[in-house]
Amino acid sequence: MPLKPVHVAVVGVGLVGTELVEQIAKLATAAPRAVHVIYMSSSSRVLYDSRFAPLDLSVWRQQFTQASAAPQIYVLPTVLKSAASGGKRVVLVDCTSSDDIAAKYPDFLNVGIHVVTPNKKAFSGSLALYDEIAGASRATGAKFLNEATVGAGLPIIGTLKDLIATGDKVLKIEGVLSGTLSYIFNEFSTTTGSAGSFSSIVKAAKQKGYTEPHPAEDLSGFDVSRKLTILSRLIPSLRSALPNGFRSVATTSLVPEPLKFVPGSEEFMRRLPDHDAHFEKLRAEAFEEGMVLRFVGVIDVEKREIKAGLEKYPFSHPFATSLSGSDNIIAFHTERYSPRPLIIQGAGAGAAVTAMGVLSDILKV
Amino acid sequence: MPLKPVHVAVVGVGLVGTELVEQIAKLATAAPRAVHVIYMSSSSRVLYDSRFAPLDLSVWRQQFTQASAAPQIYVLPTVLKSAASGGKRVVLVDCTSSDDIAAKYPDFLNVGIHVVTPNKKAFSGSLALYDEIAGASRATGAKFLNEATVGAGLPIIGTLKDLIATGDKVLKIEGVLSGTLSYIFNEFSTTTGSAGSFSSIVKAAKQKGYTEPHPAEDLSGFDVSRKLTILSRLIPSLRSALPNGFRSVATTSLVPEPLKFVPGSEEFMRRLPDHDAHFEKLRAEAFEEGMVLRFVGVIDVEKREIKAGLEKYPFSHPFATSLSGSDNIIAFHTERYSPRPLIIQGAGAGAAVTAMGVLSDILKV
Ligand SMILES: NC(=O)c1ccc[n+]([C@@H]2O[C@H](COP(=O)([O-])OP(=O)(O)OC[C@H]3O[C@@H](n4cnc5c(N)ncnc54)[C@H](OP(=O)(O)O)[C@@H]3O)[C@@H](O)[C@H]2O)c1
Ligand SMILES: NC(=O)c1ccc[n+]([C@@H]2O[C@H](COP(=O)([O-])OP(=O)(O)OC[C@H]3O[C@@H](n4cnc5c(N)ncnc54)[C@H](OP(=O)(O)O)[C@@H]3O)[C@@H](O)[C@H]2O)c1
Repeated sequence: MPLKPVHVAVVGVGLVGTELVEQIAKLATAAPRAVHVIYMSSSSRVLYDSRFAPLDLSVWRQQFTQASAAPQIYVLPTVLKSAASGGKRVVLVDCTSSDDIAAKYPDFLNVGIHVVTPNKKAFSGSLALYDEIAGASRATGAKFLNEATVGAGLPIIGTLKDLIATGDKVLKIEGVLSGTLSYIFNEFSTTTGSAGSFSSIVKAAKQKGYTEPHPAEDLSGFDVSRKLTILSRLIPSLRSALPNGFRSVATTSLVPEPLKFVPGSEEFMRRLPDHDAHFEKLRAEAFEEGMVLRFVGVIDVEKREIKAGLEKYPFSHPFATSLSGSDNIIAFHTERYSPRPLIIQGAGAGAAVTAMGVLSDILKV
Repeated sequence: MPLKPVHVAVVGVGLVGTELVEQIAKLATAAPRAVHVIYMSSSSRVLYDSRFAPLDLSVWRQQFTQASAAPQIYVLPTVLKSAASGGKRVVLVDCTSSDDIAAKYPDFLNVGIHVVTPNKKAFSGSLALYDEIAGASRATGAKFLNEATVGAGLPIIGTLKDLIATGDKVLKIEGVLSGTLSYIFNEFSTTTGSAGSFSSIVKAAKQKGYTEPHPAEDLSGFDVSRKLTILSRLIPSLRSALPNGFRSVATTSLVPEPLKFVPGSEEFMRRLPDHDAHFEKLRAEAFEEGMVLRFVGVIDVEKREIKAGLEKYPFSHPFATSLSGSDNIIAFHTERYSPRPLIIQGAGAGAAVTAMGVLSDILKV
């Protein structure tokens, strides 16, 4: 008895979306269920068959380049609802980072279309939108799954849901959740010293393509605050703790005050060395105490404290010893996983592992 | 739209089974789905209502102590089939370590009863039984889920299934998979030396209740070989690599040759110190090279090598630095998680986390 096939509409075929379509195309025939792509769009193109026949994935790139109609995001819930006629299982897969599309998740869920996405926006913004999404899902049974929003393909959200569903009590969650900031501090602050000045390491990270085009976006810490918001809302007692989402998280930005409003990344990078002494002082002080610096997210459930910022960890701590490259690491301290936490570690960004997180959610709807 | 309730029959109410029933009793009313216990048995008692009404879990201990009928394992598939009438979702939860019950999983699956279990026997023995189980599951759509057989509540099997289902290629799996042997070597072989002689540490482990009644069972390494068998069979190219299950794994036992046939644990423990020099030599040699000893399981997919035994790891390796107590750790090296693996770490035994692994499977059927 094979499982029912899933019909997916991929909105946003950038890095992750393209890799996702390729992974679906290569899905072994032995896959637990068939996945058909019936719709694809970028901000200027849209490709689908008027009867929602599965697209031929061996020629999709060519067909997509030739497509030219404007995308129809405002009518898409209605369009996909008709694709779901006859009890077909249809999933909206949002691979953009668009707020506009995030705002429409309730419309999809309300007509029974499942939502799977690596886009953090809908779950880390206002509580009102989150409530609307959760309410629509409850009302129709359509699911929203977002494993790839935290740690990409790492099983972080699924594990937290399982802990909670089985009655465990989360005490504290602590993690290095930004691949970019992981890389920067794994280089800058080690148990043996430092690989260079702060600005030179940020520069290297930018050259390797680890940062956003403007590195201030990474250094602001907001990516971490968004991930903390997503995790916090899964913990019953913190469900409503962040009314304004990531803006309610106590975030200590790494962007030096005088560079806060520098719009261009070139000027920003040119002026960053002026602040190397500040970071070097922090690093050297920690080093004297036998500690390294890490930019972490912390959710302390009892204290109701949710914060993102620089913390110090002893040389023997897993965040100091076993972390390298741009890996993420997260520790769940719970009533059952105590005194030692449950730890998950590995690459937390990159198109292949992110698409994998999305695809495994698709296989689960 | 709440999910369909699940009706479970718990066979074996020892450490894990008792904890499981307690966790079910405490399941928040906000749980993703209702779980009803309709049947419970030990090797001498059985408790259920003739119309399969949910048992009252506030008084189950008392009722169970008074129950006295002999259990009916041979008729149980038929009994549970009638409990499943009207499309009810019924799950056999085997919390014994019995081979007899394991051998009957195909009978349950063949009549549409799902199987959830922490019992390794069925999946780590002969390939014939495993094939029969997989075949029955495919034929009727009844699932078998066994997350708790490897690493207890840690998300190990689920993660491996997700990697494979989404088309990743597993290159190598390496892990410390026995809590007992983790504890022994985390004490015996550290980056700073040793906490005592090998036999004194085994003795301490026994006193803390970390070992089986006869510690030779742990030292044999077969628990690790069973777990390796379970994992290997999920990897398509190794599906049939171990015809005799754990007996086909290249296992290097830690039981000294002269103590191999000592039946009593007292004599075994009395004579174990005779072999301390042997273990001390291995430890000191490794230490000289900047390495620690760990008893690990390794699945090398390309080489088709599946082995359990003592290996050396550099002081800087996660198995040396970040492991402590009786924690398990496992590293998945895959095409996508490369060069750095996906790592999962935490308590891999204990009634609370094992029952949690079982319960999260129950919530997923
Ligand atoms: N890359 C990673 O490692 C990673 C990891 C975790 C999570 N994520 C998340 O995954 C999502 C996608 O990331 P990415 O790296 O793939 O970004 P990307 O390469 O910038 O791709 C985004 C795509 O979305 C399209 N798009 C934007 N607005 C659209 C609209 N209204 N309708 C249809 N398509 C629209 C863009 O198309 P045009 O080119 O036509 O504008 C672009 O191709 C983001 O939310 C990101 O935060 C990424
Ligand atoms: N404990 C852990 O940390 C852990 C971790 C991972 C996996 N597991 C696995 O979980 C399973 C249970 O472990 P446990 O620690 O709970 O063992 P346990 O305390 O020995 O409990 C086993 C129970 O099974 C019952 N039983 C034996 N044969 C039976 C039969 N034919 N019909 C009905 N009941 C029968 C026994 O009842 P009687 O007392 O009447 O004989 C006993 O209460 C084992 O397979 C184990 O390998 C345990």
